[in-house]
Amino acid sequence: MARVLDEIRSPADLKRLDTDRLKCLAGELREEIVRTVQKNGGHLGANLGAVEIILAVHSVLNSPTDKIIFDVGHQAYAHKLITGRLREFPTLRQYQGLSGFPRREESPHDAFGVGHAGTSISAALGYCLARDARGENYKVVTITGDGAMTAGMAFEALNHAGELDTDLVVILNDNAMSISKNVGALHQYLTTIRTDPAVVRARDEIERIMSRIPAIGGSMMKVAEKLAATVRHVVVPGAMFQDLGWAYYGPIDGHNIPLLQRVLREAISRGGPVLIHAITQKGRGYPPAEEDPGRLHSLKPPICDSDAPFAVTYSEVFGDALLELAKDDPSIVAITAAMPEGTGLAKFAEELPDRFIDVAIAEQHAVTLAAGLACGGQRPVVAIYSTFLQRAYDQIVHDVALQNLPVIFCLDRAGIVGDDGPTHHGVLDLSFLRTFPNMVVMAPRDGAALRDMLCTALQLARPVAIRYPRGATAAPGRNVKPRTVPLGKGEILREGNDAGILAIGSMVNTALSAAELLAARGTAVTVADARFVKPLDEELVLQLARLPGGLVTVEENAVAGGFGSAVLELLTRRHVPIERVRLLGIGDTFVEQGDTERLHRLSGLTAEDIAGAVQLLLNERPTLGSFVAH
Amino acid sequence: MARVLDEIRSPADLKRLDTDRLKCLAGELREEIVRTVQKNGGHLGANLGAVEIILAVHSVLNSPTDKIIFDVGHQAYAHKLITGRLREFPTLRQYQGLSGFPRREESPHDAFGVGHAGTSISAALGYCLARDARGENYKVVTITGDGAMTAGMAFEALNHAGELDTDLVVILNDNAMSISKNVGALHQYLTTIRTDPAVVRARDEIERIMSRIPAIGGSMMKVAEKLAATVRHVVVPGAMFQDLGWAYYGPIDGHNIPLLQRVLREAISRGGPVLIHAITQKGRGYPPAEEDPGRLHSLKPPICDSDAPFAVTYSEVFGDALLELAKDDPSIVAITAAMPEGTGLAKFAEELPDRFIDVAIAEQHAVTLAAGLACGGQRPVVAIYSTFLQRAYDQIVHDVALQNLPVIFCLDRAGIVGDDGPTHHGVLDLSFLRTFPNMVVMAPRDGAALRDMLCTALQLARPVAIRYPRGATAAPGRNVKPRTVPLGKGEILREGNDAGILAIGSMVNTALSAAELLAARGTAVTVADARFVKPLDEELVLQLARLPGGLVTVEENAVAGGFGSAVLELLTRRHVPIERVRLLGIGDTFVEQGDTERLHRLSGLTAEDIAGAVQLLLNERPTLGSFVAH
Repeated sequence: MARVLDEIRSPADLKRLDTDRLKCLAGELREEIVRTVQKNGGHLGANLGAVEIILAVHSVLNSPTDKIIFDVGHQAYAHKLITGRLREFPTLRQYQGLSGFPRREESPHDAFGVGHAGTSISAALGYCLARDARGENYKVVTITGDGAMTAGMAFEALNHAGELDTDLVVILNDNAMSISKNVGALHQYLTTIRTDPAVVRARDEIERIMSRIPAIGGSMMKVAEKLAATVRHVVVPGAMFQDLGWAYYGPIDGHNIPLLQRVLREAISRGGPVLIHAITQKGRGYPPAEEDPGRLHSLKPPICDSDAPFAVTYSEVFGDALLELAKDDPSIVAITAAMPEGTGLAKFAEELPDRFIDVAIAEQHAVTLAAGLACGGQRPVVAIYSTFLQRAYDQIVHDVALQNLPVIFCLDRAGIVGDDGPTHHGVLDLSFLRTFPNMVVMAPRDGAALRDMLCTALQLARPVAIRYPRGATAAPGRNVKPRTVPLGKGEILREGNDAGILAIGSMVNTALSAAELLAARGTAVTVADARFVKPLDEELVLQLARLPGGLVTVEENAVAGGFGSAVLELLTRRHVPIERVRLLGIGDTFVEQGDTERLHRLSGLTAEDIAGAVQLLLNERPTLGSFVAH
Repeated sequence: MARVLDEIRSPADLKRLDTDRLKCLAGELREEIVRTVQKNGGHLGANLGAVEIILAVHSVLNSPTDKIIFDVGHQAYAHKLITGRLREFPTLRQYQGLSGFPRREESPHDAFGVGHAGTSISAALGYCLARDARGENYKVVTITGDGAMTAGMAFEALNHAGELDTDLVVILNDNAMSISKNVGALHQYLTTIRTDPAVVRARDEIERIMSRIPAIGGSMMKVAEKLAATVRHVVVPGAMFQDLGWAYYGPIDGHNIPLLQRVLREAISRGGPVLIHAITQKGRGYPPAEEDPGRLHSLKPPICDSDAPFAVTYSEVFGDALLELAKDDPSIVAITAAMPEGTGLAKFAEELPDRFIDVAIAEQHAVTLAAGLACGGQRPVVAIYSTFLQRAYDQIVHDVALQNLPVIFCLDRAGIVGDDGPTHHGVLDLSFLRTFPNMVVMAPRDGAALRDMLCTALQLARPVAIRYPRGATAAPGRNVKPRTVPLGKGEILREGNDAGILAIGSMVNTALSAAELLAARGTAVTVADARFVKPLDEELVLQLARLPGGLVTVEENAVAGGFGSAVLELLTRRHVPIERVRLLGIGDTFVEQGDTERLHRLSGLTAEDIAGAVQLLLNERPTLGSFVAH
């Protein structure tokens, strides 16, 4: 049977569709999304919930002249499918395929690239002010989730736009969920608006009463008018947004296309900053996702990891270890920013709910809250993905490191994360964390090491960061007690006299494989796990640097300012000539999306790459080095 | 005449004072503050405005058991004076003297260190949750300015605390000013509450009418009740805070001590999160500061810079140059985050108000707004102090660099800023900016170079950062046209065959002085101004590294991951052995407060230090280098 979807080559084609065909199209989009996400992995719930909003917006606006800006962007699949990307949709989230998020390079319909939360209103306001200044007259509409509204920068933008007289429509796509359950007072406020029938009834009745008040003179009349205005002000829900200078329309059914179209047209013709509050259902139209939207927020591709035999992820090891430690230490508090599942803290939240804090998508607050908890005598452990912790850079320096407070940062998804692509790789954290005085920075090579490092961090009375990758690892032995790692001490894992490989975190096992390759070619290398990026193990670095072939450092982080860079600084500080040192890591480029193995290969981070770097060192200026016979 | 102030050894002594003596004390505190600030420099307006609030809070609470947390902290002088620091007060903002901000090391009464805006509610909530978990029962009160409330993280914290049932009092110290004029819809909202007599009158009259409504049955009665409740809800000002779950008390006169005491006691006995809205006057009690609170936000010490003969500051050069360039290019837009004066943009704002945007204290929004403006075809120039731009780390990577948008960042106060101390030094920006792909990072050695670099940045279709220090510089020649600097090219300023000094930005002139010192001792060095931290001038670096004595890099930035570190990475990448290289810069420690000259000395960044480093290189392993005869 011919699909409506196959006729949609650009959003202009939507204009010819009546409501029934738009509804039909909505169903087809959902099928396409579910099918592709089941195959490729990706975000499911948010995408299914936003289909009607996207159809309504595109049928009313003229993209790409008009600008549609998504927040977070994990709800834009339907947008991609109706803006000429249907045929490429099977490549979603694959290497050189369609991104899982809007990207400016991908289509002129993607007005602003995105991945992190809370940016849409700022970016949209930028477009509006540019448009007004240049005398242009396109429309600007954002599609912004209720989860994203908890990010401080969304408030900063609401506050700024609310005092400007520029035409901007924000569609608050309220599915009452962030990634997991939404939290915070704003969420409760929105719930009140949504669900309180008394408010809705009272509004109608009061309007009726007001219209019947007989004409009365003087101050009494003024009071009545004032009363009417103020009553309208509050009983019309959304007063909070009105207080911030925004016109508020809603709440409306976010799955009713003609209603959405009508309200959007009204909002546009009204002018100024307008917020449309649309209620949607996460996972809409796909029963499994409707029933468990938290778990079906996103799917992994069916065969996700080449290291599938391992039973556990780093996140699970972290969550389990912290839970065990917390049972013995009542001062431990776990903090997450809307990621209880992703960070492995779901079990902790269930077993120790009083010591689990979800602050919503609010990384800045999470970190300074932790600083306050530490001042109050608690042991806060802040678990945030590496890429999202970038939001709290200043709070880590200014509130934690400067005051030397014992806050522990656990950075999940550090390194290359795969399909989510450049907005989500966490390849800058070693570079920035190591520049903060007082910080200790560690990276475990496997699950057991992660547990040891967590245990170590709790014994240090200062700020500590532990970063570890997405994905699976060897489970730490059940009966093995976590050990304390001596501060600033690495570990030699294999000895050889030709050259040294100093690796950190996720690259240690790759370095061991490189040593195997080299051994097969007659080269014997020492492989060490640095364990600490800060403080560095000076003795170990000097020992490896003294090997005749020199030293290769390996990290799943930017070379710029990263772990290897710290090694160079140390050698220089200790007046050790750096004759043969190579730094392997991510180059000066944003890493694309794709499977992790391929991205490691493209980044020059395979065992073969490491072995090659060692051999280059050994071949170089052989007169300077003294080779050892094998 | 004996002062009340001299009897106050700790806040406990306030409990014995009646209102008259407290008022008297307030006057004495103001005298002390004005006298000391006139001598030492420091923040004036905010400190004068907060005196009564501080006296009320300390007379009701029992610090340090109870926790008083300041936001920004530039209003805490009165707090310092009554918590045992009167005698040390003349050392305010001096080296090893009292900090201009609360600091935990300084006093147990300083519950949380501060300097940047918007942290108080997060930190206070951390204390509250720690207290509740540990079964303790101290009180937690913040003193938070209306300016700080525009920071996104303050909203994140309000949103989180609003749904918790924990006892926390936020005193919103509303002086209707941020640093300059406050902006944003929240400000307008607060103004409405403060100033609309109709609202106040309507509230009273409506309450009266409501109380007279005769008993009527059924649904009509319910409607009336609902009406009464909702009317109270809105006509009692502060509904927005109530919507976020906070009890709201106010607005009240923030200079009326007994009223403040009473309301604070009520708020504490109510429990839960309570916001007290206190109206104050910035500069209160000191006529010059009352009249011009913007200019008298802070004072410099009378003899502030050793380089006083120079007529201009970097900020002025920047502001003037941008204004000139903007007159020729209508797409240029200047953005500041509450710092029109500090960043030198006041004249721009006056002459081109339509192209000047002050977003309030909201650095994250400022950066993503700029990204949106760039997408819309404008040329945004974001002027933010180095230390505050840390707030927007993620937005620079995620919204600007990743999309390779032509946003120009002008980082004022980069390097050591002096008296404001560790929260305000900007010594991390080179380390973090250079790790972002697509970024160009420059630093000018004087005002003329700043103008050239700004002009250059506008010709590049990519993100560019220019960082420059606080203070004075040689004014660029009025009739000299700005020149374009070739991308990634440094400049040799002096030639010599013994060794090289590669300096960046503010350190270039110091390097030239070092060369003079060395010349007097018979050593001839090449001095180069790198101009670019990214892209580095490879040829120049290699040329200097080849000099027999090697190369010293000098920067007013952390050595960790900084400019010198980039030089090491480059040499390693190009397989150049690094035999003699020294990196001079800020070590792995937070720089204290004090005059800039002294801090440079303590950081090893004087001409003598540079000369010494060169001589050490030359003296080291002389067999490896080949000396040139002089």
